[in-house]
Amino acid sequence: MNFLEIAKSAKLASLEIAGLSEDIRNQALISIANILEDHKNEIFEANKLDLENARILVESGKLSQQTFNRLKLDENKMRDMIQGIRDVAKLPDPINKILFKRELDKDLVLTKITCPIGVLGIIFEARPDVISQISSLAIKSGNAVILKGGKESVNTNKTILSLINSALDNVKNFPKNVLSQVFTHEDIAEMLKCDEFINLIIPRGGNKLVQYIKENTKIPVLGHASGICHAFVDESANLEMAQRIIIDAKTQYPSACNSIETLLIHDKFPQKDELLASLELSDIKLINNPERWDFEYGDKILAFKTVKDVDEAIKHINTYGSGHTDCIITESRENAEKFMNNVDSAGVYFNASTRFADGFRYGFGAEVGISTNKTHSRGPVGLDGLTIYKYKLMGNGHIVKDYAEGKKHFTHRDI
Amino acid sequence: MNFLEIAKSAKLASLEIAGLSEDIRNQALISIANILEDHKNEIFEANKLDLENARILVESGKLSQQTFNRLKLDENKMRDMIQGIRDVAKLPDPINKILFKRELDKDLVLTKITCPIGVLGIIFEARPDVISQISSLAIKSGNAVILKGGKESVNTNKTILSLINSALDNVKNFPKNVLSQVFTHEDIAEMLKCDEFINLIIPRGGNKLVQYIKENTKIPVLGHASGICHAFVDESANLEMAQRIIIDAKTQYPSACNSIETLLIHDKFPQKDELLASLELSDIKLINNPERWDFEYGDKILAFKTVKDVDEAIKHINTYGSGHTDCIITESRENAEKFMNNVDSAGVYFNASTRFADGFRYGFGAEVGISTNKTHSRGPVGLDGLTIYKYKLMGNGHIVKDYAEGKKHFTHRDI
Repeated sequence: MNFLEIAKSAKLASLEIAGLSEDIRNQALISIANILEDHKNEIFEANKLDLENARILVESGKLSQQTFNRLKLDENKMRDMIQGIRDVAKLPDPINKILFKRELDKDLVLTKITCPIGVLGIIFEARPDVISQISSLAIKSGNAVILKGGKESVNTNKTILSLINSALDNVKNFPKNVLSQVFTHEDIAEMLKCDEFINLIIPRGGNKLVQYIKENTKIPVLGHASGICHAFVDESANLEMAQRIIIDAKTQYPSACNSIETLLIHDKFPQKDELLASLELSDIKLINNPERWDFEYGDKILAFKTVKDVDEAIKHINTYGSGHTDCIITESRENAEKFMNNVDSAGVYFNASTRFADGFRYGFGAEVGISTNKTHSRGPVGLDGLTIYKYKLMGNGHIVKDYAEGKKHFTHRDI
Repeated sequence: MNFLEIAKSAKLASLEIAGLSEDIRNQALISIANILEDHKNEIFEANKLDLENARILVESGKLSQQTFNRLKLDENKMRDMIQGIRDVAKLPDPINKILFKRELDKDLVLTKITCPIGVLGIIFEARPDVISQISSLAIKSGNAVILKGGKESVNTNKTILSLINSALDNVKNFPKNVLSQVFTHEDIAEMLKCDEFINLIIPRGGNKLVQYIKENTKIPVLGHASGICHAFVDESANLEMAQRIIIDAKTQYPSACNSIETLLIHDKFPQKDELLASLELSDIKLINNPERWDFEYGDKILAFKTVKDVDEAIKHINTYGSGHTDCIITESRENAEKFMNNVDSAGVYFNASTRFADGFRYGFGAEVGISTNKTHSRGPVGLDGLTIYKYKLMGNGHIVKDYAEGKKHFTHRDI
């Protein structure tokens, strides 16, 4: 099958899975978890093959050790992967949720109800655990998926998806072609053009991948190309709190998108030197007034600058930030409110580390990704981000003419 | 100012208007309504100029009479236009609405709250009443707007926007540059490329305009390129109800996007001939098995075909429809449910005319447009479609390390 045929099949599958009961969708997830558990040695074998090929690339400098590590599946990762699928099965159903029910007139009832989006295109890099994670989120939310993984993990990916699909074959009434996989770079190009059949692209990988995808498709992309997060230490900040939050937000996981890249300090904050010294003691390399303010270090490096007030901090963040997550450390409720109302980011924090920006920490149960978009989904995205809604109208021969002519009148009463 | 400067100013204005109180936003709307009322003769004068120019174009066959009619502002349209602004002022505030409030842990509270999207790009054709309508919806929802109207109404548009902006100049604390206007075809091209500053494009015009815009931008577009709506008459349908609904859905306003283009009839529906005859008596021209099923007639023309069951009807609609609004006419609840669950459209109707697909009829108070998108907003879109949300996190020095190390645990309790 060429890409267009795969996409058409996925579209048809999406129409079928959309109508499946919650019970069948959850049963499918349990079957997937079981088959992966029963056949994990096959997956380890396939992964070993990928690791052997990758090792050669690492030795010749063509692949980073980091990518190699992400590629590796061990017992712990496998256990988390399988548990992750079981956890998704236990989450509340994100579809068929009634958002409102409204009587428009006697015997004319409008219901707004959540439903799947359709076909998701997933483009991910070396982490093979993405397959089972995204597949389970898609099945839970009634969507079909086309997966394109990194070439380094091709054997692992093929083995995992073929196990998953053989599990699905045995689930009664589960449609064919809900999950499919493509492999070539040309497939990515085709996917990005395929707005007729693909409704949402979710990239899982580094900034360059996401940037490339966003620049080359008209299909909505759920994700963030960069995470330029800020901490602003206000005049009245508590020193100990500022130290604690900044050290957490920079060092707890420096390459995470929700780690801070820039520290802004109020020029009247009295303990500035103490604060900076303590950050350096925590292995943070400080850069005073760097050339670029929109750079993601992804390391224990922190740009810093003094600002004259909270307004200048807000302006700096709205100019150079990526709209991801930014925090103010202050004892002034008034400044905190001003900051949170005026910083145009998905997450605006008061006296808390930016590292909290995460679907699990927000209590979503699962995370689809973190979005810096201004439409559909923003910030950490749970299963809700894979749904949209439709309007169901139940009438009894109602026609618009009667209302246009004033013979009948709308009641518009929520029920 | 060139387009980029206008867009940058709009972006800055969007950050300012986002923080305005509901009171100031509503005050701005009242001021706009008042100034338009007080200066309506100036608007009529400008409109007269546009109509004189347009009349020449109509006479030389360069402009349709339809466009000419849409261009014309009379006392009725003006009254509706001004009343529309006052109505928007009375609607509940769409921003600063708390979607949830959750305790993540003691003294760590997450709030999901609605906020404006940012900058809207509006591209519209000859109807000058769009300016005041979209401007009032944008102000109500705290967004900035760049408007590009049709060249036929340039004098009317300029006069209306300059009156609106002089009203806004007199509203205390209302920021500059919330509403701006551009005029050339090059400005459209610039707007569609300007994804750095423009967050949402709303086209108001014919299919060709919307199609062109959707094909030429990566910015999310709220709208629909076509409305291929269907009615399916099931085996058990009540004849009188079928006649009434189909005649309404086709003739009440044939050029509306929610009018039906295709009639599907169950081949065992016993009164097929009677039904078709009655439609022809209502001036509907029936076309049996046309060459194209995805064509929008926009006139009293209706394609029709017999199908063997509800499944074939669903398949036809999902293949050739535009995902707008489709209805089933049946006495079978089971078939109605099947149809409504499996037809992948924004509106799925049972025994009611597709013409109900409209923001006002749904009780939204205002309509931004009708969307056939599968993300953000679907179907008739009210003020909600001009909002997104942000997450506010209020802590007391909380850091992620404590949770990663198991020293603290999330409570995730909605409050």
